[in-house]
Amino acid sequence: MNINTNKTIPYKTHLKENELPSAWYNVRADMKTDQQPLLNPKTFKPVTLEDLEPVFCTELAKQELNTTDRYIPIPDEVLNFYRMYRPGPLVRAYCLEEALGTPARIYYKYEGGNTSGSHKLNSAIAQAYYAKEQGLKGVTTETGAGQWGTALSMACGYFGLECLVYMVKCSAMQKPYRRGVIETYGASVVPSPSDTTEAGRKMLAANPDNPGSLGTAISEAVEVALNTPGYRYVLGSVLNQVMLHQSIIGLEAKAAMAKYDEYPDIVIGCAGGGSNLGGLISAFMEDKLAGKRNPHFIAVEPSSCPSLTRGRFAYDYCDTGHITPLAKMYTIGSGYIPASSHSGGLRFHGMSPILSQLYHDGHLDEARSVKQTEIFEAAKLFAKVEGILPAPESAHAIKVTLDEARRCKETGEEKVILFGLTGTGYFDLSAYMAYNSGTMTDYVPSDEELEKGLATIPDIGL
Amino acid sequence: MNINTNKTIPYKTHLKENELPSAWYNVRADMKTDQQPLLNPKTFKPVTLEDLEPVFCTELAKQELNTTDRYIPIPDEVLNFYRMYRPGPLVRAYCLEEALGTPARIYYKYEGGNTSGSHKLNSAIAQAYYAKEQGLKGVTTETGAGQWGTALSMACGYFGLECLVYMVKCSAMQKPYRRGVIETYGASVVPSPSDTTEAGRKMLAANPDNPGSLGTAISEAVEVALNTPGYRYVLGSVLNQVMLHQSIIGLEAKAAMAKYDEYPDIVIGCAGGGSNLGGLISAFMEDKLAGKRNPHFIAVEPSSCPSLTRGRFAYDYCDTGHITPLAKMYTIGSGYIPASSHSGGLRFHGMSPILSQLYHDGHLDEARSVKQTEIFEAAKLFAKVEGILPAPESAHAIKVTLDEARRCKETGEEKVILFGLTGTGYFDLSAYMAYNSGTMTDYVPSDEELEKGLATIPDIGL
Repeated sequence: MNINTNKTIPYKTHLKENELPSAWYNVRADMKTDQQPLLNPKTFKPVTLEDLEPVFCTELAKQELNTTDRYIPIPDEVLNFYRMYRPGPLVRAYCLEEALGTPARIYYKYEGGNTSGSHKLNSAIAQAYYAKEQGLKGVTTETGAGQWGTALSMACGYFGLECLVYMVKCSAMQKPYRRGVIETYGASVVPSPSDTTEAGRKMLAANPDNPGSLGTAISEAVEVALNTPGYRYVLGSVLNQVMLHQSIIGLEAKAAMAKYDEYPDIVIGCAGGGSNLGGLISAFMEDKLAGKRNPHFIAVEPSSCPSLTRGRFAYDYCDTGHITPLAKMYTIGSGYIPASSHSGGLRFHGMSPILSQLYHDGHLDEARSVKQTEIFEAAKLFAKVEGILPAPESAHAIKVTLDEARRCKETGEEKVILFGLTGTGYFDLSAYMAYNSGTMTDYVPSDEELEKGLATIPDIGL
Repeated sequence: MNINTNKTIPYKTHLKENELPSAWYNVRADMKTDQQPLLNPKTFKPVTLEDLEPVFCTELAKQELNTTDRYIPIPDEVLNFYRMYRPGPLVRAYCLEEALGTPARIYYKYEGGNTSGSHKLNSAIAQAYYAKEQGLKGVTTETGAGQWGTALSMACGYFGLECLVYMVKCSAMQKPYRRGVIETYGASVVPSPSDTTEAGRKMLAANPDNPGSLGTAISEAVEVALNTPGYRYVLGSVLNQVMLHQSIIGLEAKAAMAKYDEYPDIVIGCAGGGSNLGGLISAFMEDKLAGKRNPHFIAVEPSSCPSLTRGRFAYDYCDTGHITPLAKMYTIGSGYIPASSHSGGLRFHGMSPILSQLYHDGHLDEARSVKQTEIFEAAKLFAKVEGILPAPESAHAIKVTLDEARRCKETGEEKVILFGLTGTGYFDLSAYMAYNSGTMTDYVPSDEELEKGLATIPDIGL
């Protein structure tokens, strides 16, 4: 392979540690239309701090409701942990550009360079810190692909907190070693649905072979947090607090690109609950909302769980057991159990309320859904030429990046493309092996199947 | 946890890409006593370039025999690949220092930040490059833990070379996903001993349950390379060419430490065949041999495979089938089959001839052997406070680092300790799970058992 030798921009740009952002960016302070408030699931009235405090750490509940502070300082203890694996590199994908023969300049923000293998650690360490500060004993959570559970176990291990992880059953079976790493950091893992909670027992009674879903695991984790003294529930995506913490991805990416006078024309991120996409576009969205720049944002979701591309913008529950507040979001219904796939991190029926509102208002420009076999084809090409084996979730963004870069080849446009490489696929080898052996299948729900999910969205007259 | 806030040295030091070394360091040019030559296994005469060329790529064979060039330029194509994952960070282990309460300043050179999960990629990409340059069709190799096999599959995938990997059978069974990642990069994997070679068939005939060893896998890989047109054999450790390529670890580490006027008092590396240790100490050994500095070098090996601590400095075969040249090295005998352990990367009966000579001459100061359960205890502490889950091999160096740092706590000495964090444990979760469940055992061969291995060292009168 011949490599472009005219490289004025390095392959990898590492900000210095003193260039690490010292505050998170809260996009709600800039949104043209604020997201609709979360609703109390019993009264259907907007949730208050008092409603949230039994479930969430107090400081995190405040962040959840904060619509006014544009920047929120990152605590020193969190910054110290960030310094162990951040700033994350911005990588110029020279070898991928060459392989595609595209005039596009492709960059990716790499978030997989830590043991959790993904960007999830950015929020996990913040949430664990606030729990510790509050004097809590432990936290509960759910995990799909296992990335969030791993990240949270690392964060809790660091701060000496107990940690109970409800892991979606089909993921737990696909990835036994995910459980191994979570337990190595001292956390406990329960495959969900389980018989340890009322919500879980109800699901198992209806279907003993239920493969689980994030929605169900959330119900279980919240139930336990509510019933265990000194415990709170924490969540790795969807919520505003998570978007806030993940803004560090976009803040770093923008700062690193600015060092070379680069600015993305297109920003591409995979989207499940929205934590990565919201984080990646954060600083660029700030520019867009201020009318300074106009990057084109693309959300990429799996065809098997198409909340943005085929869902409805409506109030819905975040969990299957209907314990959590309702959020106004793009959703395919909390009763929809997405087909088991190899991108467990994207198997959520809803979408971040912030991103949903931004999409509804046209600031998040576009959403595309892609098939599982397409994303593994893209992942293997990327792995071969760029060296890094991507997580299946991240490969959604790679697939659309390849599409856009190939389009640039046709048109000759020298577009600057930035995508989020959220994580590594080291715990997804069973998925790669299925793809390698040709046994992987795709799943696109029919309109009828999808309608069954959409029909579970409650009609609350809002 | 309270973190030291007086941090004039960053957590991580990344050299800039233009500070990446442009040449490898060849320690043989500086050795007081050159290593004894490799011997032709048929004639027992020193091997010539002509002897080596049927087995190795010509350029690599030349590097193997090069005793005079202190620095050998790194080809541009290799440098371009290095830029995708190098320079590797030098990390100040602030959190580990705090956890231990030690006045020592602990640094580690982290080589796990690439998909192969270890330093092995440094030599793999060089060897694949020279094979491609020579117009070869493919290469064969062996792999123990799977790190070298993964690295070579990545390198061959990048340059478009065929790659056949003989994987030690017990490792292949412990780590099915290692095989998955190797195949994802397009290489083929055969568990060894196998019935695909004469050497393998002989081993299986003697013991159908043979768990395999690096020595046997080498015999198989060499046999196939010799019998397949357009193929050569490549190796991930032991040989001089590998020490040469891995010198980049030490060159970078020294340059990164120099930025903060730091120099190690103690340098600690795990040692199997010696590729990591040789690489890590390279630039510091240059200073030591020149009389400029006197760092204390410690090699750490597993108690189950103690070539430096309990072996003999003698001519021995590098493989079990006695196809390869003989090397003058510390060895416990090519007939010794090390007990199956979770540190497959250290299960080799011999030691790099260069390191063996340096150890024999007292320039490599010290060797220690440690037990398997000790290294996992150290690994878990490290993972919790420093975030990175280490490879079991790397954990050997961590264990001795903890010992030294604790000794500094007792004496009050502010020693500067550098160790090599060669790789990540993401594919070693079955080992961690065994440790977590309390089922892991230790193995220290008795003198009688060891004697059986030592008795297989040939007496060639040299």
